[in-house]
Amino acid sequence: MNAQTVSIDLKERSYEIAIGRSLLDEPLTFSGLPSANSALIVSNSTVGPLYADRLRRALQSKYANIHRVILPDGEEFKNWQTLNLIFDALLENGCDRKTLLFALGGGVVGDMTGFAAASYMRGVPFVQVPTTLLAQVDSSVGGKTGINHPLGKNMVGAFHQPLRVVCDLDTLRTLPQRELSAGLAEVIKYGPIADLDFLAWIEDNIEALLAREPEALGHVVRRSCEIKAWVVAQDERESGLRAILNFGHTFGHAIEAGLGYGQWLHGEAVGCGMVMAVRLSERLGLVDAAFVHRLTSLIQNAGLPVTGPRLAQTDNAGRYLELMRVDKKALGGDIRFVLIDGPARASVRGAPDALVREVIDACCICL
Amino acid sequence: MNAQTVSIDLKERSYEIAIGRSLLDEPLTFSGLPSANSALIVSNSTVGPLYADRLRRALQSKYANIHRVILPDGEEFKNWQTLNLIFDALLENGCDRKTLLFALGGGVVGDMTGFAAASYMRGVPFVQVPTTLLAQVDSSVGGKTGINHPLGKNMVGAFHQPLRVVCDLDTLRTLPQRELSAGLAEVIKYGPIADLDFLAWIEDNIEALLAREPEALGHVVRRSCEIKAWVVAQDERESGLRAILNFGHTFGHAIEAGLGYGQWLHGEAVGCGMVMAVRLSERLGLVDAAFVHRLTSLIQNAGLPVTGPRLAQTDNAGRYLELMRVDKKALGGDIRFVLIDGPARASVRGAPDALVREVIDACCICL
Repeated sequence: MNAQTVSIDLKERSYEIAIGRSLLDEPLTFSGLPSANSALIVSNSTVGPLYADRLRRALQSKYANIHRVILPDGEEFKNWQTLNLIFDALLENGCDRKTLLFALGGGVVGDMTGFAAASYMRGVPFVQVPTTLLAQVDSSVGGKTGINHPLGKNMVGAFHQPLRVVCDLDTLRTLPQRELSAGLAEVIKYGPIADLDFLAWIEDNIEALLAREPEALGHVVRRSCEIKAWVVAQDERESGLRAILNFGHTFGHAIEAGLGYGQWLHGEAVGCGMVMAVRLSERLGLVDAAFVHRLTSLIQNAGLPVTGPRLAQTDNAGRYLELMRVDKKALGGDIRFVLIDGPARASVRGAPDALVREVIDACCICL
Repeated sequence: MNAQTVSIDLKERSYEIAIGRSLLDEPLTFSGLPSANSALIVSNSTVGPLYADRLRRALQSKYANIHRVILPDGEEFKNWQTLNLIFDALLENGCDRKTLLFALGGGVVGDMTGFAAASYMRGVPFVQVPTTLLAQVDSSVGGKTGINHPLGKNMVGAFHQPLRVVCDLDTLRTLPQRELSAGLAEVIKYGPIADLDFLAWIEDNIEALLAREPEALGHVVRRSCEIKAWVVAQDERESGLRAILNFGHTFGHAIEAGLGYGQWLHGEAVGCGMVMAVRLSERLGLVDAAFVHRLTSLIQNAGLPVTGPRLAQTDNAGRYLELMRVDKKALGGDIRFVLIDGPARASVRGAPDALVREVIDACCICL
């Protein structure tokens, strides 16, 4: 085994993230998991054909009955209808309370499989096998699961921790370049909120990352998981500190919801959202123009958009504000932004609508 | 305030059940609940017109915005489509993470409101205001929430404890007699599994209960909640002891699923299921014929069915077995029955198919 390990310390819900090459088809990767009569591999129509058979072979000595269900691929399918395909598969195959679910795919598969595991018979165990950079650095830590509602992203879900996370770096080879960049958005995020050395490392190695050099990818997956684990361990249910992980997400969710889910990738929206959030931080006097320039350049160099889409013809900023008011962090209609307010430090706070409008106008595509 | 109180001890999720008359429209009933910008009253088309305005008035000094959503009434609507009406109402009204949900109705409203509260933004608080005897004695304690799936009852859900439960005995005056009897099924259940004195009390007072004498109703609601609380406090997530509360439910769920949800009331199916379960206990030598007769008579005197419906023309017992194998308690296809194995004592165990078939054949309507 050539895996590195990051431990997530959540008391009786603690688990480990294995990071390395060729993990997916190695039975040792899955040793120590609880025994059960059956397992269900949940994947999508893109990832399933590539890796589901290999995962199945690695599991077959352990589980007598390994079922699979293949979901349609894309954020626009992250809804109840698709979730129900998992429940159908579980019930049609007579899966019981000990059945293990394996989420094989990106963040959408992980979020839906996790929510299905949280809800099936009020809770069965699951294992994450993320195959995108975004899922490896973000959704593999934290236990957030859920689906979208037509009126808001991730509005329906649960906190449910996996038993284990397996990040096989080799699966990133088949990732489209656009999705690699989208994953880098969540990697970059950890710099300004928590670790400027890491930000500098990413700047120095952005070419190696875009070229998918395994050592570089392994480093950012491990460091991202470590930072997220440190934050989540202090605030599992997102009552305070954990909200800083949503840097770029308030604006980003507005972009995703406004364009319709699936138009921009989540990471693309977060990349652009970080540009907006750091500019709002600047307008509030919290960071200087040099830092805005530095972060914007890196986001652009990672292949991500730094200019926002127009979401309405007449009052574009108003539409952004309207969409942000239904964000989960909003309280009583007040939008809560994650802003950078010092070196490697973020906080959650409100901002005057007028300032937010100026930032949106400055960041969106010209009329 | 003339309320009695039962405390449910679940550490940081502890809460109190208030039991009494005229509680629903008394603002004091709701003192001490957390403040929030908004509250959502969830009710159904039968109960809403009777009590929603009164509850709203009791809450209006506390919550600036009180919304309501009225669900269609009946177990057959305990599904995702109906659940989504609650999410729609929450999102259309801009409800945030602190919004309180109030479940005003029977067990279906309580289970769906609780699951919506567990899942909306990954968890908001809720209060139970059960208006049926069944809900007051059963679903108000334990934190089980969920919806049905076409292939199984309560297959999708969560454990989510309410902040408070308010059992207003006056709401039982408007309950149809058939539903009163159904509620008595869950009351009777607590006798054989935990308290033979209580069983004797019910036998002595069955006429007063059927005549809805408030003192008698108050006593059985309180004692039922106490017994359930005692069991749940020891096993919140149903890993062991708690399963005894499902006495009568394994057979009962098969009846409900086999006839189609909503044909028999849940309590009716449980009443008949208890007859089957105690007869299976007798076949295994665990109780004597006198006890079977005693329990069967009480169930019949409560106005409940003691003979099972035919679920298939050719192999009726086989159909029961098939349906019971997808019960949540089943493990690897082995059906787990809750059986009476001593005075006021129950345990969960398997039984040979042949014996189960004999019991079903003996309990079902003749060919």
